[in-house]
Amino acid sequence: MANMLLHNDRLFPIEGHTREIARELYLAIKELPIISPHGHVDPKWFAQNEPFDNPTGLILAPDHYLYRMIYSQGIPLEKLGVEDRNGRSDANPRQAWREFAANYHLFRGTPSALWLDHVFSGLFDLNIVLNESTADTYFDLISAALKRESFRPRALFESFNIEVLATTESAIDSLEHHRTIQHSGWPGRIIPTYRPDVVVDPEHEDFAKALIEFGEQTGENVESWQGYLNAHRKRREDFINMGATATDHGHPSPRTAALSVSDCKKLHFEVARGRAGPEEAELYRAQMLTEMARMSLDDGLVMQIHAGSHRNHNGWVENRFGRDKGADIPHGVDFVNGLKPLLSQFGNDLRLSMILFTLDESTYGRELAPMAGHYPCIRLGPPWWFFDSPEGMRRFREQTTGIAGFYNTVGFNDDTRAFLSIPARHDVARRMDCGYLARLVAEHRLRIGEAHELAVDLTYSLPKSAYRL
Amino acid sequence: MANMLLHNDRLFPIEGHTREIARELYLAIKELPIISPHGHVDPKWFAQNEPFDNPTGLILAPDHYLYRMIYSQGIPLEKLGVEDRNGRSDANPRQAWREFAANYHLFRGTPSALWLDHVFSGLFDLNIVLNESTADTYFDLISAALKRESFRPRALFESFNIEVLATTESAIDSLEHHRTIQHSGWPGRIIPTYRPDVVVDPEHEDFAKALIEFGEQTGENVESWQGYLNAHRKRREDFINMGATATDHGHPSPRTAALSVSDCKKLHFEVARGRAGPEEAELYRAQMLTEMARMSLDDGLVMQIHAGSHRNHNGWVENRFGRDKGADIPHGVDFVNGLKPLLSQFGNDLRLSMILFTLDESTYGRELAPMAGHYPCIRLGPPWWFFDSPEGMRRFREQTTGIAGFYNTVGFNDDTRAFLSIPARHDVARRMDCGYLARLVAEHRLRIGEAHELAVDLTYSLPKSAYRL
Amino acid sequence: MANMLLHNDRLFPIEGHTREIARELYLAIKELPIISPHGHVDPKWFAQNEPFDNPTGLILAPDHYLYRMIYSQGIPLEKLGVEDRNGRSDANPRQAWREFAANYHLFRGTPSALWLDHVFSGLFDLNIVLNESTADTYFDLISAALKRESFRPRALFESFNIEVLATTESAIDSLEHHRTIQHSGWPGRIIPTYRPDVVVDPEHEDFAKALIEFGEQTGENVESWQGYLNAHRKRREDFINMGATATDHGHPSPRTAALSVSDCKKLHFEVARGRAGPEEAELYRAQMLTEMARMSLDDGLVMQIHAGSHRNHNGWVENRFGRDKGADIPHGVDFVNGLKPLLSQFGNDLRLSMILFTLDESTYGRELAPMAGHYPCIRLGPPWWFFDSPEGMRRFREQTTGIAGFYNTVGFNDDTRAFLSIPARHDVARRMDCGYLARLVAEHRLRIGEAHELAVDLTYSLPKSAYRL
Repeated sequence: MANMLLHNDRLFPIEGHTREIARELYLAIKELPIISPHGHVDPKWFAQNEPFDNPTGLILAPDHYLYRMIYSQGIPLEKLGVEDRNGRSDANPRQAWREFAANYHLFRGTPSALWLDHVFSGLFDLNIVLNESTADTYFDLISAALKRESFRPRALFESFNIEVLATTESAIDSLEHHRTIQHSGWPGRIIPTYRPDVVVDPEHEDFAKALIEFGEQTGENVESWQGYLNAHRKRREDFINMGATATDHGHPSPRTAALSVSDCKKLHFEVARGRAGPEEAELYRAQMLTEMARMSLDDGLVMQIHAGSHRNHNGWVENRFGRDKGADIPHGVDFVNGLKPLLSQFGNDLRLSMILFTLDESTYGRELAPMAGHYPCIRLGPPWWFFDSPEGMRRFREQTTGIAGFYNTVGFNDDTRAFLSIPARHDVARRMDCGYLARLVAEHRLRIGEAHELAVDLTYSLPKSAYRL
Repeated sequence: MANMLLHNDRLFPIEGHTREIARELYLAIKELPIISPHGHVDPKWFAQNEPFDNPTGLILAPDHYLYRMIYSQGIPLEKLGVEDRNGRSDANPRQAWREFAANYHLFRGTPSALWLDHVFSGLFDLNIVLNESTADTYFDLISAALKRESFRPRALFESFNIEVLATTESAIDSLEHHRTIQHSGWPGRIIPTYRPDVVVDPEHEDFAKALIEFGEQTGENVESWQGYLNAHRKRREDFINMGATATDHGHPSPRTAALSVSDCKKLHFEVARGRAGPEEAELYRAQMLTEMARMSLDDGLVMQIHAGSHRNHNGWVENRFGRDKGADIPHGVDFVNGLKPLLSQFGNDLRLSMILFTLDESTYGRELAPMAGHYPCIRLGPPWWFFDSPEGMRRFREQTTGIAGFYNTVGFNDDTRAFLSIPARHDVARRMDCGYLARLVAEHRLRIGEAHELAVDLTYSLPKSAYRL
Repeated sequence: MANMLLHNDRLFPIEGHTREIARELYLAIKELPIISPHGHVDPKWFAQNEPFDNPTGLILAPDHYLYRMIYSQGIPLEKLGVEDRNGRSDANPRQAWREFAANYHLFRGTPSALWLDHVFSGLFDLNIVLNESTADTYFDLISAALKRESFRPRALFESFNIEVLATTESAIDSLEHHRTIQHSGWPGRIIPTYRPDVVVDPEHEDFAKALIEFGEQTGENVESWQGYLNAHRKRREDFINMGATATDHGHPSPRTAALSVSDCKKLHFEVARGRAGPEEAELYRAQMLTEMARMSLDDGLVMQIHAGSHRNHNGWVENRFGRDKGADIPHGVDFVNGLKPLLSQFGNDLRLSMILFTLDESTYGRELAPMAGHYPCIRLGPPWWFFDSPEGMRRFREQTTGIAGFYNTVGFNDDTRAFLSIPARHDVARRMDCGYLARLVAEHRLRIGEAHELAVDLTYSLPKSAYRL
């Protein structure tokens, strides 16, 4: 029976000659190791190397890309195995899987379908379409596979040909799992990323508690501005010792600030006492981006700024199921004025490297590419989150390349907690980049030799150098 | 002589294999009945079933898509038969038609040319290009055709294969024409849509007068908040009795509000007395969207929100020719914060169905698709008004499908007062959807069987279910 | 050896049949004279007709498109021959050229590479790729060519087949070079454009000094509002006498105003004394757009408005190298509300012609095309600056044609100070327009005869008529 799920030419340009060029470019880079410099895989999996759960627990319940779509059609999250805010779910995994299978048509035309079909076919050798009638076959076959040694986390990591995988940890994370991995003798390179939002954002629900822990962990008096900054420095060093090369900052806006030290002290005094209003909270986050940049000059961590998401927009869902349950909605942002204070201080300093991500595609050509095509410190992160579809990737290249070129971009980020889908996601990006390059070749705007060089750079060289790996 | 106006393969993808797939998909759905759930056709035509006027009065003078473009090149509206604010025009219909014909090249590359050529060729069997030298031939042939029985409104409705046609009526409309149609025994399904803007927008020039009529019509004391709400409930019921399944709200912004009842009463008190300033007017409109949603929970009417038009931007034209004369210009809007108050109340209630339309394409990926891909009550209206071109339709699919899928969209709306063009407009949408699906098939992202299912869903099933028809 | 740099089919659609149509359209218009109605070439070159400098001084050092990109990768501007704010550079031209050559791969996929390869191959017969190893060959061959008579400015102008070239001059420019050209007997048509920003923008660093000179030049008391307006009128007349047909206004925003004369007098009083704050400066610029429009009614100069750039965003670079050094970053603007005061006064006056340019592509469909498709005075300028790439040109047509048609656009602007690249830039635009038209023909939306007419109009007729040349 023909493989119904994965065609060798998928995602390549439809015109014959151009498709041939894309195929040629892709064949030359498809086996390159995966560089995954930004993601949300749980390091515990590799520290403990236990077999994965059932398909629902592994594939459906943790992936808000999937359950948000099914929820949007009126199916309760409870039925899908999504845990409530206390980490509990009463759903029967097989029943939840059946619900997912019965609604799998909702993903037609979405990147989720591309990734899942790749996982089903490439990893579990399932080559029939998932739907109501195949749900149990899928559940049983995947469940059985997950019990095999070759499906344990470390074995998969190796078979995926991942050269380096960055995870993302809170500033107050113990890093115990990274330590376990590092001391285990297993050679897989899994490194943390310093994400201090919980101690930087006064409006985060856990801010007060986290700040106390931040002080205890570092032995610093975090109620003082200098002690607080020292705590960051110490924790950044902890992360660097575990292999980290980057920080990550998820802010509502890209606003930065350049306050005087005395103003910082006053602001921190209010913030540390829980007395900051919305404007003070925004100013504090803004100033902290500048402080993080300043620290990067010294310790060399690459800064990643993710801006423009209205987090937890659906209060009803947040109350029942907690944060990060698929109800983060992008909104407009202003990088040009927002980043100016930071750039005025460090924008021309070659020690700084700052990777910008947007959820507002109208900023690609208007703001981000013009800045990346001028400021030495700025690089453009790949199309992110809602925009990691084939069309999103194509728009990214079409809107940024003419202005910032290829060499101010940093390759692909899978940004995922869905470990199984990492090869599928990188494969989509590689195919789309090869297709884009093939079009330039077919239009006689790029020579084939240049396209080959670029295919390697976009897949492998640029992420390695941009993230200082 | 070859038909110069209509090619069988028009609008299909240009690559040969993909075009074949598109053709196959299209052939399977092209004869499906037309579902027209949102438009502005005059119900009087079907109530009275009189022959249509001359070509100018039927095609040119009422269609602001056409005369705005000719006006933009410096030709006075008076010459085109556009009525002044008293409903009068001195233009000679034939002279106006000649002016139109002499300027028909202005529409090259626009959807208007696609629709008109379809009407000219498909309906009147005219297969030469409209221009100065063919103007009279056109005028005479169309005039003659309009006298035939088969060109009367009901006959055309039947020959167009329209299953249901929704018109749009003010909250104070008598619905007499719908009543006449309903009682006539003629089986054509023509239903009203409840559009209460004139009694919801304190800045509408007819607000004060309309409010009085609203009270008289319903026997409610509309000066009180409860009486005013009751009047809405009664009129919604009147519309439902005439077959309505939806409301429509054309607001400058998608702002909503969640005021307390006592604040509502205070605000209504000011508004009903004509004392609301711009900010109070905006707040009133915002609160009324929430009230309309609340009523929809009870009576099941689907809400349509059209936001983001700066109406009657050209004051000079408005003074001479009245409202809605082609000078409505889109402006930026914020759906994410704007809709939050309403969504916080009803966003997770499965009784609510809310269809959102935008005039700002940058909101497709940034705001609308992420919200539609999460909230159960939200569906995405099709590309609307300035964006119902083939390119606009393609951008809509490319920017929303990856995020919200196909099943959070609602098929096509012709949104037109140009009755003759309804089949042409639906045909363009069907061709573009089939072309989009064909591309996904050719890129091996969708199986041909799925594409066939989707072609039927996008054309027929989704509009029927989304509008509860 | 095959020409590695220029393929005859470059930039045409990749599908075979459509490419043939594009080629046919292009062949019919490729030899049409160049109309260059907006640019920044130095008129001194044609007044003096001296041989050009070395390749670095001619090609690299003055072109911020080039050095901004190399700077973005951390290479100091000093090394590239860019002059500091005192007009000095210590760089060795050959060394700077080598640096450029070694980094030429940064331009892969950018329009700069298209233009440069066209210049290298078409003008200097260089058909090998520029890189580190060919840098000296390039430098020597170009240097030698520049010494020939046929490479002097006037000879190049003639060989480029330029019918008219507009330059851009400050309101206080002496116009001496234009006078020299006009009196020289040489028939090349080189005309100035009135750009009054330096005496209109109170925040311009040279405003105070320029205002004094403005008064001296015109013999008007520019401290009074009427004297200041008279000075504009006189200088506009000077420009018209040198052949000018247009003005150009580079404003941070498209805001306009309609102040009373007495408010204008008060505002001017503050501005002329250097006492205007940011909001007053913005209001002054806004009012001056309206004043310029009013003067255009009388003297017929076409207005060009370029809005939406945050000039000199990088203060560090500005301090060392001066203004306009590649650090102008676009930001969001609001044309709909911004232009309303001006349009309310003159929007329906057929004497006014106003060409709008944007750096925010999201305004094409949302604001600009709807306004151009209605207001008789508005035309759409071509994709500008960061958007003059093939993709930018395609998006412009795809987003504006359906709404405003082709006949509210004005052909191509090269907008360049890189004289050598003018034919290359127009060639890119012609190829992209022919490709766009070919796609419409292949999709059966346009007849081939119409496409031929449009190709001539977009290339030649529209810029001539729009700029009243």
